[in-house]
Amino acid sequence: MAKYTNILVAIDFSSSADEDEIAQRAMAIAENNATKLSIIHVVEYMPPFMMGNEPIPSTSWVINEDELVDNVKKKLGEFVRRLNIESADQVVSIGTAKREIIRIAKEKNADLIVVGSHGRHGVGLLLGSTANSVLHHSECDVLAVRVDKK
Amino acid sequence: MAKYTNILVAIDFSSSADEDEIAQRAMAIAENNATKLSIIHVVEYMPPFMMGNEPIPSTSWVINEDELVDNVKKKLGEFVRRLNIESADQVVSIGTAKREIIRIAKEKNADLIVVGSHGRHGVGLLLGSTANSVLHHSECDVLAVRVDKK
Repeated sequence: MAKYTNILVAIDFSSSADEDEIAQRAMAIAENNATKLSIIHVVEYMPPFMMGNEPIPSTSWVINEDELVDNVKKKLGEFVRRLNIESADQVVSIGTAKREIIRIAKEKNADLIVVGSHGRHGVGLLLGSTANSVLHHSECDVLAVRVDKK
Repeated sequence: MAKYTNILVAIDFSSSADEDEIAQRAMAIAENNATKLSIIHVVEYMPPFMMGNEPIPSTSWVINEDELVDNVKKKLGEFVRRLNIESADQVVSIGTAKREIIRIAKEKNADLIVVGSHGRHGVGLLLGSTANSVLHHSECDVLAVRVDKK
């Protein structure tokens, strides 16, 4: 039977109910297997010097990246404690969600990526979504958990 | 724990190795649960009178839809016997894969659709795929099983 043994769950903290559902779906698949679970949150922050050829003076200069990552690590720690999955690897990454999820999935040799998916209408359909991008670029299976069920 | 209880697996018979993997992934998720498994194959055949305002004389006129569906039903029957999942509901549908998968998923009240996914490059990226379309339009979770793993 083709079981998943190495699952990467992407969490974006947009809604705690949604994140709980995504993690619980992954846990239900991981259950009864010797499955390694990793949880990733990508901080979608782009340093100002990456925004063009010239540095852009803005309030974003005052953002301390280390502090940002530390805060997210705390949040992720609380999340895994609340769901009683402290054994999961916790990864906090800075960059674009799609790229970082794909990169970490490869690094961890994941055989399944679990990601939240929203219905897409109007502009959303044109802009695409993380679930969609991950589906296009992943080398492993992708479970898109629909978080805005009707 | 958020387990799936009603899984719809879409099979297109493009490669028997691929179809086996898709079904086995679904079975691994369904295992140890009181999960209802349904298997759908969509015959992507469009009758000639739907191709425009005027009937198009072509060899497709000689296609017997009933015969087509009967043949696919036999193939699906062999498939479920080979994988030892005779208890699965078998659905053969005529139309576009995306629409029929979504329609039958609703009809069966599925909470997970399992569908094969191929890497998309070049023209494929523009044309889209069944996995992609199902992801956009599904009201439930979607597991895309990557069938061309590197």
